[in-house]
Amino acid sequence: MSHEVVVIEGDGIGREVVPAAVEVLEALPVDFEFVKAEAGDAVQEATGEALPAETYDLAADADATLFGAAGETAADVILPLREAVDSFVNVRPAKAYPGVDAVRPETDVVFLRENTEGVYAGHEDRLSDDLSTLTRVVTSSASRELAEFACEFVEDGRGPAGDSDEGFTVAHKANVMRETDGRFREEVLAVAEERGVDADEELMDAFATKLPLDPSQYGVIVCPNLAGDVLSDLAAGLVGGLGLLPSANVGHDNALFEPVHGTAPDIAGEGIANPTAAILSAAMLLEYLGHVEEGQQVRDAVEGVLSDGPRTGDLGGGATTDEVTAAVLDRL
Amino acid sequence: MSHEVVVIEGDGIGREVVPAAVEVLEALPVDFEFVKAEAGDAVQEATGEALPAETYDLAADADATLFGAAGETAADVILPLREAVDSFVNVRPAKAYPGVDAVRPETDVVFLRENTEGVYAGHEDRLSDDLSTLTRVVTSSASRELAEFACEFVEDGRGPAGDSDEGFTVAHKANVMRETDGRFREEVLAVAEERGVDADEELMDAFATKLPLDPSQYGVIVCPNLAGDVLSDLAAGLVGGLGLLPSANVGHDNALFEPVHGTAPDIAGEGIANPTAAILSAAMLLEYLGHVEEGQQVRDAVEGVLSDGPRTGDLGGGATTDEVTAAVLDRL
Ligand SMILES: CC(C)[C@H](C(=O)O)[C@@H](O)C(=O)O
Ligand SMILES: CC(C)[C@H](C(=O)O)[C@@H](O)C(=O)O
Repeated sequence: MSHEVVVIEGDGIGREVVPAAVEVLEALPVDFEFVKAEAGDAVQEATGEALPAETYDLAADADATLFGAAGETAADVILPLREAVDSFVNVRPAKAYPGVDAVRPETDVVFLRENTEGVYAGHEDRLSDDLSTLTRVVTSSASRELAEFACEFVEDGRGPAGDSDEGFTVAHKANVMRETDGRFREEVLAVAEERGVDADEELMDAFATKLPLDPSQYGVIVCPNLAGDVLSDLAAGLVGGLGLLPSANVGHDNALFEPVHGTAPDIAGEGIANPTAAILSAAMLLEYLGHVEEGQQVRDAVEGVLSDGPRTGDLGGGATTDEVTAAVLDRL
Repeated sequence: MSHEVVVIEGDGIGREVVPAAVEVLEALPVDFEFVKAEAGDAVQEATGEALPAETYDLAADADATLFGAAGETAADVILPLREAVDSFVNVRPAKAYPGVDAVRPETDVVFLRENTEGVYAGHEDRLSDDLSTLTRVVTSSASRELAEFACEFVEDGRGPAGDSDEGFTVAHKANVMRETDGRFREEVLAVAEERGVDADEELMDAFATKLPLDPSQYGVIVCPNLAGDVLSDLAAGLVGGLGLLPSANVGHDNALFEPVHGTAPDIAGEGIANPTAAILSAAMLLEYLGHVEEGQQVRDAVEGVLSDGPRTGDLGGGATTDEVTAAVLDRL
């Protein structure tokens, strides 16, 4: 059975790291049909649309999508694409690797970020010359669906290594957003209780203090949308930057995979971007499509290269994207 | 002229660190009239009200208030108290001290957090069994007032040492909250431009990655309410925890000073809490009331003790609150 995977390079280093990830996928004994599509600043400039309807439809109909990055149009591209694949959870692992300089080398966490609502539901109004409002949305149904996913994730041992049966932490701000985050917190904890999964909680501000002080106390963290955005990016800072972080936007019958980093305009076009985050996103794609062993193979190859292979400039090396990719391919 | 200062110890270690800070204030050649008032879990249990009207009125009428911490009732106490003193900005310095273990010893930043609106304006509705909403509020007037304060702050050289004329960074999420954070961002940058103050900007998620990677690139950071809450707590994690961080809620003609930490129920009542954050809050109170020299004296004394004096358990020492306080008094 062949998997139809839509490939959207986007802008900047997306055009360099996505091809690297596709090369890795092509090297495996898995049958893919890759369909290229456009999104981002360049296509916006050319056509007036950052996300052409054709790309949206392709992503919606595919088995999975691999996306790179978009520049100024990032929000116009990624938010509708998450919707196209009907994604309700954004899975964001942040792991420090041996051999890579990290502010906190003990960091090994996975954020499960609600991916449809919160402030991202985005009903904004300009009520007067002075006043604007945004209506933040939280539903029990989305909160419970995220929590069910989190419970399965933990039960299946997909959390950080050595953390498989330790449950999860829900991070929220229910002491201020009592009704909305209160609902989120209550539903997530109720689902955990029903399923017999351990769950504890942290206020998101306290979590932001504690994570840098001692990341080893956390494993899987379940968050509302914006909290997940900011707290997972904080974790990225602790493991040495965005160059290493993959992510999965998982839906009911579809999913989209993307490196957490952006287009890196300062180095775009030079062939020196770090392809690690894109390749690890491809590993998540493999696992999502049922090729768990191949996903693990890719991860192992990447870890090997990170620990004693060539490295790009962001990690203090001088290697090119191609050299790092070749080193990963060598180890498969 | 005597300054009327309302003193609210609150709960837990608030009852230990606030008296320490008052002792320090009493040791200075400044004339204070201290008025004690109650707030927090204990008074809620006794009277049904976490913040008695009397306390609110006292804070509203005083020259300044020194607050400790409240337990479960924290939000019910601190949010109305900020309103009582008519505070529009929460000033939160986060500085690593020589001799204190810090994840990022180069950290020396000051957050200026909007203190009246954002999600804290808190219009929440339970629209159905499934759905709750929160209306986030952003006004041009509050954004501009914060920005004016930030410009003066920078112009007066009150930012981190060596950073006095470097302007400020505004952190926001205007790529998603286009109308609300868009308004905030636009007004803050416009005021900076009008006043000839340098201002740059970061998306708050990118900021959360970059701060741990390289705090030395930031000085004064201007944020919406919740962003300021979370990002300043992140900075607390980088300097070694909440035990060191003071804060000021500044209004037009009144202000409230509080350590950023909470009630620390695990060590409350043992006399071993770190009084540093409360004493540094007292230093901010001195400066606010015009006693800049005395404020600096207190800071210097605290820094001296942190570098080679007795230290409490949270900093790896074995000293009591009283011993640390006595060491600070010795150096005044
Ligand atoms: C580009 C932006 C809309 C997006 C988000 O906020 O979700 C990005 O920060 C991310 O986390 O993928
Ligand atoms: C207790 C809580 C309401 C408060 C806030 O969110 O402002 C606290 O976290 C703080 O930052 O002072």
